[in-house]
Amino acid sequence: MLINLSSALVNTLQERRQQLANLIDFPAILWSGNTNPRNFPANVFPYRASSHFLYFAGLPIPNAAIRLEAGKLELFLNEPAPSSALWHGEIPKREEIAEKIGANVARPMAELESWVEGAATIATQDAATWTQQSQLLNRWVLPQNPPQGIDLELAKAIVSLRLTHDAGALAELRQAAAVTVAAHKAGIAATASAKIEAEVRAAMEAVFITHNMTTAYNSIVTVHGEVLHNEHYHHPLQPGDLLLVDVGAETRMGWAADVTRTWPVSSKFSSTQRDIYNVVLAAHDACIAQIRPGVEYADIHLLAASVIAEGLVELGILRGYPQDLVAIDAHALFFPHGIGHLLGLDVHDMEDLGDLAGYEEGRTRSHRFGLGYLRLNRPLRPGMLVTIEPGFYQVPAILNDANVRSKYQNVVNWERLTQFADVRGIRIENDVLVTDEGSEVLTAALPSDANTVEDLVL
Amino acid sequence: MLINLSSALVNTLQERRQQLANLIDFPAILWSGNTNPRNFPANVFPYRASSHFLYFAGLPIPNAAIRLEAGKLELFLNEPAPSSALWHGEIPKREEIAEKIGANVARPMAELESWVEGAATIATQDAATWTQQSQLLNRWVLPQNPPQGIDLELAKAIVSLRLTHDAGALAELRQAAAVTVAAHKAGIAATASAKIEAEVRAAMEAVFITHNMTTAYNSIVTVHGEVLHNEHYHHPLQPGDLLLVDVGAETRMGWAADVTRTWPVSSKFSSTQRDIYNVVLAAHDACIAQIRPGVEYADIHLLAASVIAEGLVELGILRGYPQDLVAIDAHALFFPHGIGHLLGLDVHDMEDLGDLAGYEEGRTRSHRFGLGYLRLNRPLRPGMLVTIEPGFYQVPAILNDANVRSKYQNVVNWERLTQFADVRGIRIENDVLVTDEGSEVLTAALPSDANTVEDLVL
Repeated sequence: MLINLSSALVNTLQERRQQLANLIDFPAILWSGNTNPRNFPANVFPYRASSHFLYFAGLPIPNAAIRLEAGKLELFLNEPAPSSALWHGEIPKREEIAEKIGANVARPMAELESWVEGAATIATQDAATWTQQSQLLNRWVLPQNPPQGIDLELAKAIVSLRLTHDAGALAELRQAAAVTVAAHKAGIAATASAKIEAEVRAAMEAVFITHNMTTAYNSIVTVHGEVLHNEHYHHPLQPGDLLLVDVGAETRMGWAADVTRTWPVSSKFSSTQRDIYNVVLAAHDACIAQIRPGVEYADIHLLAASVIAEGLVELGILRGYPQDLVAIDAHALFFPHGIGHLLGLDVHDMEDLGDLAGYEEGRTRSHRFGLGYLRLNRPLRPGMLVTIEPGFYQVPAILNDANVRSKYQNVVNWERLTQFADVRGIRIENDVLVTDEGSEVLTAALPSDANTVEDLVL
Repeated sequence: MLINLSSALVNTLQERRQQLANLIDFPAILWSGNTNPRNFPANVFPYRASSHFLYFAGLPIPNAAIRLEAGKLELFLNEPAPSSALWHGEIPKREEIAEKIGANVARPMAELESWVEGAATIATQDAATWTQQSQLLNRWVLPQNPPQGIDLELAKAIVSLRLTHDAGALAELRQAAAVTVAAHKAGIAATASAKIEAEVRAAMEAVFITHNMTTAYNSIVTVHGEVLHNEHYHHPLQPGDLLLVDVGAETRMGWAADVTRTWPVSSKFSSTQRDIYNVVLAAHDACIAQIRPGVEYADIHLLAASVIAEGLVELGILRGYPQDLVAIDAHALFFPHGIGHLLGLDVHDMEDLGDLAGYEEGRTRSHRFGLGYLRLNRPLRPGMLVTIEPGFYQVPAILNDANVRSKYQNVVNWERLTQFADVRGIRIENDVLVTDEGSEVLTAALPSDANTVEDLVL
């Protein structure tokens, strides 16, 4: 089965190819990539095509390549093996697929070697394919190596296109957002009867499966929000726990959502939990209010840091003036990650290219503790989709570190902090589109204020 | 988080290492393997350790290696990076893991190169790891190449151990079977209100997620059972459809179940569906009744072929004597795959070694249409776990093939066959343990007779 592409989407794909042609004067060959074997060759992980391929070809076609030149697309794809009809049913022929994606020409894969002269590419993630890329192009094309020469020029051109989303992309991103909102609502509803984290995760991922979507990344559903990338789901849900849930859908054409909510297992925040929750929410709301074209995303990050510092001062956890606290990274004791990242075909969009997409040319990562994890450092432009995801965590590796405690001895009221022991981790994350006027929260249908969240859990 | 191993399981692991030592007089190094990136390096598919590693080490430890010699296990593993505590929480130290799995020594990975002399290995599935294996051992260790020399000796030794299951393995396999039975019951229950296949799949996989298990293979949940490996889930469920569901769980330690049921969407089989269903069920029951030590699995396959041929003769679809029909592979027009396969840590157990596990030494695949897909050809022994999965399918690629129609022109009553158009595909599959006395069906708690299945759907 192939997804049917609307004629609008085929037009979108052709526009993307033409836009690429306006940026580069050499051909580009993009491979879709192969499946990854799980424990033996025939037992594979679900197929995920390369995002760069998907951007121009639209469909996840395994083991294909497209050659883009002057706005034209040549599809390279082998016909299905005769035996495959027995096992996999009638697989569309090369010509049918070519027509579906609006290809100008379709050829067998073996002919690709006659068409590689002067072509740029981007490494896929799977070894079978990047080995093939390296052999055909007669240079190392490795996912871990930053692109060079024309490959770098191609990468920059693609970044400049993928940084802002066209109508075709937005239609997919809105679908991913809507299904993600539905999944979170299902997760909240499942909490009352759930005994362990895994039951909430099951209720949420079942919504994705029902919509023929997948998770865009491995779900986080945890009462131990202090572990930032927690992929365990076996802990019991106990009264007094907060459940931090970072779960997002990916559509069949590969577009992602990325949403976090934190809700009280018992449907009631404790007063300390509510206090911190409202600090995080204030940061979240303040950031979104500032999002508009021209604003520096790094300033949004610093705004979140500042609002969090201010809130923690008001709660008596930090001491000093918010701006001074941010200047010495005191906010990062509790908010050690960036305020968010680009979102698109990848949940960290184009992160396969390192910081090429996330960082404006000439900018590099800060060495500051409070800024180094920022994944996006560019002025915002209409059509960019970013996450806004402030948080508060009591990470033992940070707060129990002797150097940290010594450096921030007088800045943190450590005694007061102990009263917030029931707040291990809180994050609120939404997907925010930069518009001409300001912003639109694609995931706004999922409430984030404390009272409404409590009502939903009940 | 590490799964806690019972002392009984640690003893089991040590026994397996001792048994290996009784079979080979050279050291073996088994790598666990790495994660596979999905669309960028930090966004990975869920981790699955190599089954051979799991068999001796018990736990899925990423990026580890074990060196087995004379019954002793040396664990090679790097300590978690200091930064990992921030993102992933406290990861157990090498020594803790070593103790948990009963290792005799634990060393950093960098020391492994001093211990490779004369060691055999088995290729992992991920390229990063088999590249490392090849470099350290100074020979090509590729998953697609059959093992040679001492690697082949090691593979044969491991096959001889993994062919039959010890108590530790059986405890896991029973868990996988029980959760799979629960998932199928949930899927049957979800059918009444489901509009598309995906909803039934969601209800089933949610059961696995709830139990912190995964699918052992990509689920098949389809009203188009005639496509044998159908991984699409978008078709509507319509009255009169049969839903063919092949879904199995895998435990956290990697042990698999593999179960298929076929049920009527509307809760009632049509008379033609019931007739064919009962033919498949008769084959299923006859095969299981024959399973005992010493019986040739290929004979079980031929028994299934014969019962199916007989049933189709009775229904007027085939003409002739069952044994004659089987001799000319007429059964394979409708039952084109093997009666089953080994089941263990892999759903096709040890298929990473080609037919080394499935085929008794000296035997090779038949070129006969009706036998070539048989994955297991050995005499049965107590402790073997096999699937029994007869089926009936109207595969267009077979039945519409001009050569097939010509060859079987007089053997098939093509006119009569058209009356069975509402039977696109039926399979009944259970997991059967060979015992000293005969057999035990690990998945027997899931009914398979037509009336009970109908009652469950209602």
